[in-house]
Amino acid sequence: MGAPLRLGLAGLGTVGVGIVKIVQNHTDLLATRAGRPVVITAVSARTQGQDRGVDLSPYAWETDPVALAARDDIDVFIEVMGGSGGPALAASRMALSKGKDIVTANKAMLALHGHELALVAEKVGRTIRFEAAVAGGIPVIKTLSEGLAANKIGRVMGVMNGTCNYILTRMHSAQLPYETVFEEARALGYLEADPQLDVGGIDAGHKLSLLAAIAFGTQVQFDAVTLEGIGAISIDDITLAADMGYRIKLLGVAQMTEFGLEQRMTPCLVPAESPLGQLEGGTNMVVLEGDAVGQIVLRGAGAGAGPTASAAMADVLDIARGLKTPTFGQPAQSLKKAKPAQIHSPTPWYIRTILRDEPGALAKIATALGAAGVSIDRMRQYGHKGTQAPVLIVTHTAAPAMIAQALSLFAQTGVLIGDPVALRIEEI
Amino acid sequence: MGAPLRLGLAGLGTVGVGIVKIVQNHTDLLATRAGRPVVITAVSARTQGQDRGVDLSPYAWETDPVALAARDDIDVFIEVMGGSGGPALAASRMALSKGKDIVTANKAMLALHGHELALVAEKVGRTIRFEAAVAGGIPVIKTLSEGLAANKIGRVMGVMNGTCNYILTRMHSAQLPYETVFEEARALGYLEADPQLDVGGIDAGHKLSLLAAIAFGTQVQFDAVTLEGIGAISIDDITLAADMGYRIKLLGVAQMTEFGLEQRMTPCLVPAESPLGQLEGGTNMVVLEGDAVGQIVLRGAGAGAGPTASAAMADVLDIARGLKTPTFGQPAQSLKKAKPAQIHSPTPWYIRTILRDEPGALAKIATALGAAGVSIDRMRQYGHKGTQAPVLIVTHTAAPAMIAQALSLFAQTGVLIGDPVALRIEEI
Repeated sequence: MGAPLRLGLAGLGTVGVGIVKIVQNHTDLLATRAGRPVVITAVSARTQGQDRGVDLSPYAWETDPVALAARDDIDVFIEVMGGSGGPALAASRMALSKGKDIVTANKAMLALHGHELALVAEKVGRTIRFEAAVAGGIPVIKTLSEGLAANKIGRVMGVMNGTCNYILTRMHSAQLPYETVFEEARALGYLEADPQLDVGGIDAGHKLSLLAAIAFGTQVQFDAVTLEGIGAISIDDITLAADMGYRIKLLGVAQMTEFGLEQRMTPCLVPAESPLGQLEGGTNMVVLEGDAVGQIVLRGAGAGAGPTASAAMADVLDIARGLKTPTFGQPAQSLKKAKPAQIHSPTPWYIRTILRDEPGALAKIATALGAAGVSIDRMRQYGHKGTQAPVLIVTHTAAPAMIAQALSLFAQTGVLIGDPVALRIEEI
Repeated sequence: MGAPLRLGLAGLGTVGVGIVKIVQNHTDLLATRAGRPVVITAVSARTQGQDRGVDLSPYAWETDPVALAARDDIDVFIEVMGGSGGPALAASRMALSKGKDIVTANKAMLALHGHELALVAEKVGRTIRFEAAVAGGIPVIKTLSEGLAANKIGRVMGVMNGTCNYILTRMHSAQLPYETVFEEARALGYLEADPQLDVGGIDAGHKLSLLAAIAFGTQVQFDAVTLEGIGAISIDDITLAADMGYRIKLLGVAQMTEFGLEQRMTPCLVPAESPLGQLEGGTNMVVLEGDAVGQIVLRGAGAGAGPTASAAMADVLDIARGLKTPTFGQPAQSLKKAKPAQIHSPTPWYIRTILRDEPGALAKIATALGAAGVSIDRMRQYGHKGTQAPVLIVTHTAAPAMIAQALSLFAQTGVLIGDPVALRIEEI
């Protein structure tokens, strides 16, 4: 049995406490699997006195995470405080400068500073591991950077914000409007302090940018992710999409195209009977496509103390076993700066519009689509409510610019009531 | 960039050729991700002349895999010949004795000799990696032994023989009897030379025994796997089970219970709307349950050149990166010999029987169930065909012995036509 691996744990919220529990409850299991004892030496959090349901008395206490990261008696700095900059970033920099490996759950920090940190880690011969930062307990970083390492990756997709998926599936099952379910989610504690991180797609966008860096060997570029939240999704669209055999998901897609690196986190329709379509509630799912392996689907809890701590501790065990995979799966120096795709790939689209009940209205819409080069796969006109006729269109594959042009032509017809809704249909 | 990692490849069937293609087509990608070039030095197969669609001229040729394994110019011995003993085993022993790491797709060899080989590997400081041996392209060995390494594993389940799943789902969708679909599968080349390896559950049982060893830290014990194939599954059961909201799968389940290590590979009913229930065709799925992470579901291609080669090459890259995870996830010396569970866990059961159309027949059956201590969750009697009345019963949780007793009491009632069918319902 080798020398103990000594952990310094910064952050004692749910995830931090989850990590303490695993280390305390699975002492022998971890030692057997790692080939050496895994021990916590020191911890840090803002307030010391608080009862967190675990015995922290065996560990040295630091109020300042930067001081924790600098301690001589830790080998690995575990950062589960959160925050893209501030103490988390300062402490991570300190840890690397002192030659510690880092295990972090901090997607925001890595989305914004991941490349810089990976370069530093490489320089000092250390690694940053962040399984817990993406899709909770699902070992997606490991699967992508190790399990599928012999593949050229074509596309990475995922539902990676459980709160959004909870809201969308609950709207569907309970037939409730967005605002009502949003308030429910807030009351249940599912929302971040700044709810835009969830419903605005920012948190999921952070995760997508990390997966894209590994998948395509590129520098993390969160600012190039097209972000669109779920706030504008109506119960009508959810119901009508279901009627056409689809579900609406906040779906992340990253792929390298002839136009550059495409990264988008937007509400999309997916086939109801597909694994993504069947994903209910707070569960996460990631779909990875490689040239040799085909399609791999991973599903599991995307958040929570146990799953997130499980992921962080897997990283710890990898380090204990001497694993040397670079932070983003290849040397940080070799990561290219990808050209962000200005033009996104063509897919089929779902369009919903409400027409005045007047002769020729539908023909005008169909003509506008044709003029924009968009061909129709399926169209449904629903019964009139008063003088309004809702119309649903599923198009054949069309570039986003063609859809934008069609919608602008729609506006000129004078037969529309309100603004039309256009959502991408992702084929999986 | 480090020194090249030199591969010796034994076996040039579909998987072997798939490996050659990855090494040749992704030379730069592999070198970047591994931090060193990955090259094939020598290959072996039975016949040399044959056109395999790849250029093998750069590689030294050995007709004898044992000679290949002994070569000084290889670091890793890749074994994709198959066969539980014979040349594959002899060559693997030779490779270890010469200090080579092993990458293998050979589930049969590891199910029967895995523990012995792991002990030898440990003694000489080498590793045996076998991602390609279980569930094709799905990185399930990595997920279990590394990704979930901080978890106490509760249960491992999986549909791990694509041919059986193809047969069962095709019987359902085309409403064809087993024999017809079996012949279809044979014509399509889906069946092993000895079809019992597939439809008898042996191949899937091999895989289950390997997962169980990692999950529970035990020595591989294939001979303790309860095996039951799909040959007795009738189209009636598939249809009636669907009627009750279930699908029939050849499902492997391994769990540590109060009775010991339970390993079974048997046809089971699973809820139609569960991820396992929705699995169609040749796709594989593995469900892993850990105390911290909850349930993780992995889905992907279970066979084929690309997926299997992807898995084998992931192992190669791990070795190139210096990964030191022990063969079964913990030191081979520490693997315990599990007591095989003589009593399997209780679950609900599906029972189908055909009754004579006579007064009191159903009451006799219900009484027999009660006498055996089995309580009924749902029961359906279908319309009579002539003088026969098919009856379906879904029981509450019952131990297998209770079900066996009930069936034996059924036989004494004198109201049965033919033998009743009892299938386990696995809750997921």
